[in-house]
Amino acid sequence: MQPGALEGLKVLDLGRVLSAPFCAAMLGDMGADVVKIEQPEKGDDSRGFMPRKDDVSTYFINFNRSKRGITLDLKKGKEVFLELIKNVDVVVENFRPGVMKKLGLDYAELKKVNPRLIYAAISGFGQTGPYAHRAGYDTMAQAMSGIMSVTGFPGSEPTRCGASVADIMGGLQAVIGILAALRYREKTGEGQMVDISLVDVSVVGLSSVNQVYLTSGRVPLRNGNSYESSAPGGGYHTKDGYFIMNGSAPKFWGILCNAMKKPELLEDPRFATNALRVTHKKELDAIVTAWTKTMTTDEIINLLLPLGFAVAPVMTIDQVVADPHIGGVRQMFGEVNHPQIGKIRVTNQAVKMSATNPEIRRSSPLLGEHNKDVYQGELGLSEERLADMRRDGII
Amino acid sequence: MQPGALEGLKVLDLGRVLSAPFCAAMLGDMGADVVKIEQPEKGDDSRGFMPRKDDVSTYFINFNRSKRGITLDLKKGKEVFLELIKNVDVVVENFRPGVMKKLGLDYAELKKVNPRLIYAAISGFGQTGPYAHRAGYDTMAQAMSGIMSVTGFPGSEPTRCGASVADIMGGLQAVIGILAALRYREKTGEGQMVDISLVDVSVVGLSSVNQVYLTSGRVPLRNGNSYESSAPGGGYHTKDGYFIMNGSAPKFWGILCNAMKKPELLEDPRFATNALRVTHKKELDAIVTAWTKTMTTDEIINLLLPLGFAVAPVMTIDQVVADPHIGGVRQMFGEVNHPQIGKIRVTNQAVKMSATNPEIRRSSPLLGEHNKDVYQGELGLSEERLADMRRDGII
Repeated sequence: MQPGALEGLKVLDLGRVLSAPFCAAMLGDMGADVVKIEQPEKGDDSRGFMPRKDDVSTYFINFNRSKRGITLDLKKGKEVFLELIKNVDVVVENFRPGVMKKLGLDYAELKKVNPRLIYAAISGFGQTGPYAHRAGYDTMAQAMSGIMSVTGFPGSEPTRCGASVADIMGGLQAVIGILAALRYREKTGEGQMVDISLVDVSVVGLSSVNQVYLTSGRVPLRNGNSYESSAPGGGYHTKDGYFIMNGSAPKFWGILCNAMKKPELLEDPRFATNALRVTHKKELDAIVTAWTKTMTTDEIINLLLPLGFAVAPVMTIDQVVADPHIGGVRQMFGEVNHPQIGKIRVTNQAVKMSATNPEIRRSSPLLGEHNKDVYQGELGLSEERLADMRRDGII
Repeated sequence: MQPGALEGLKVLDLGRVLSAPFCAAMLGDMGADVVKIEQPEKGDDSRGFMPRKDDVSTYFINFNRSKRGITLDLKKGKEVFLELIKNVDVVVENFRPGVMKKLGLDYAELKKVNPRLIYAAISGFGQTGPYAHRAGYDTMAQAMSGIMSVTGFPGSEPTRCGASVADIMGGLQAVIGILAALRYREKTGEGQMVDISLVDVSVVGLSSVNQVYLTSGRVPLRNGNSYESSAPGGGYHTKDGYFIMNGSAPKFWGILCNAMKKPELLEDPRFATNALRVTHKKELDAIVTAWTKTMTTDEIINLLLPLGFAVAPVMTIDQVVADPHIGGVRQMFGEVNHPQIGKIRVTNQAVKMSATNPEIRRSSPLLGEHNKDVYQGELGLSEERLADMRRDGII
């Protein structure tokens, strides 16, 4: 195993469910020492989420690998939390804005005990503005950023992207904010707050779409899988599936006519230019589909790839996992060895680094598994104090 | 304007179109000194992309703000490029794998002249594996990662997410790799290569979906806007639009029946439990829709929000830009002052930082605008040498 790029970095993860835990797991895979703090008895809600194996949530395992775990009631254990804060570099949380302030534990308070602290908060709408206190999940962010309005087919309902892209981009942007803040701290000694909103990150995801409206005033809507300005192209059915073809360069029209063994189309006035092909896309797509449906997806990919087309099969998750490139050489699925349920496969990191490649460093913690390690071993609390804290429901 | 978190960092951007230019613009907004290198005469293809104002691409402006720009033919100007490399911290590119090697300018070569260099490459499929040399755009990555297979409605065609999420997540993951590598370099003096694939980053976007298959063997497919395990919930039409409701907590069923003024539904055996409501979702949704269609989206949001529901209107891009929270307080749209076409609105950064908030620092460069600055001012080449390079098509 290579060294981690973030070795020596100490992180407290107050996250629940997805975006903040994902952010902290990424820091952990990169070698940071991440301690997840959970409510005593109850723990992170996602410990109860599907999918489960033998009653253990593998959803939780995936987003909480490469962390140790302790329990702490932030209300009753406020003093202990402030002790922990003195010795860490980073805190990540995704409470609804206001929760940490009510506890007297917002960034303004925490920086008093540790001015070097970097405090990252992820929320549905961010820490400021009229919607700050609303509950905001991935789907709400996709709805209010405009992602849903441009996903789907003309005439279809607005459509959610099936990947939780708001949550994931939220986690990624939080990692960026934390690492940038660390670099600033190297020079100045000063920590700061990083404020991430799931809606904001989704708006950034739409940068190229937004630009159409910001420039021309035209409101982009759903366009299915087609390209607006070239034809043929987009999604086509095959004998056994569906594939995507990007043939926007004009030369591909000739290449495609030859591949289809329909040279007469080159003379067809309806399809003489790209603009005309866009105008007659419906008839054109019917001709192309009649041809693509005579072959399997594999056959058509193997035929068109060597001709220089950008083509891709639409793959289902089982195919992705089994794929020799994605699941194989790129190692996009890794393994955790869980103390209760053994080997569990999870999704790996996508950042591949030559000297410090991210790795899954340990399984997700059992609830409070590292209380003794952290409270006794690192904070120096006595065995008696620990027993008291347990009795009082502090840990 | 606050200081930038990345001030002092020197970046060369060899990127074209979206993912690498987006990555470099983010570093620029964070204060890095980013120099974009383009092919003489021709420039980045996206200089010709729509949308345009007075023949200038605002697509290009958005993804290339906060950079200076120079021209350089990497074949004829190889020596000059190696000189530039000696003085920078980071190179970002999104050529097809193999292109830089053919030029004798891959990471293995560049680290010989600058062992501290961090070299980030973004490509469709990554630098390794059987698909490495395929052309891969955003849609291909969405297709081959499984995103399309889980986006859309049951029975609909697989659907592309209308946001270029593979490209954007690719840029974000590259920023993360670069910043993590910088931290490692602080300790060791060693640079490294960061290898990002648009397919890999899309697979990470699907983490929670993948987990279903990895655990249970069930292949997740398209589920529209519905939640699999609770009802009512998902998307509903209103008098003037569409909104999303997440009412997964069981108490919301009672609250909703009261809001609809249909207390009799609470006695209806078809809807007595969450499991039964999922089974009879079609009839249930018909009843809910009959009610939601009597109100505007605003009216229903204003009615349900105070009752504790997580609800969100599906907003179009014009509404997002005009929104007092998103376009307003969160300042998600910024402005560039372009020397030829004046003020142009673009999408802002989502990372909000208390001490070093990212800002748009300058407009995108005209082609070769900073040749003199960089080649004479920084590299110390003579005026004559510059004239020669211009004559020889090197710059």
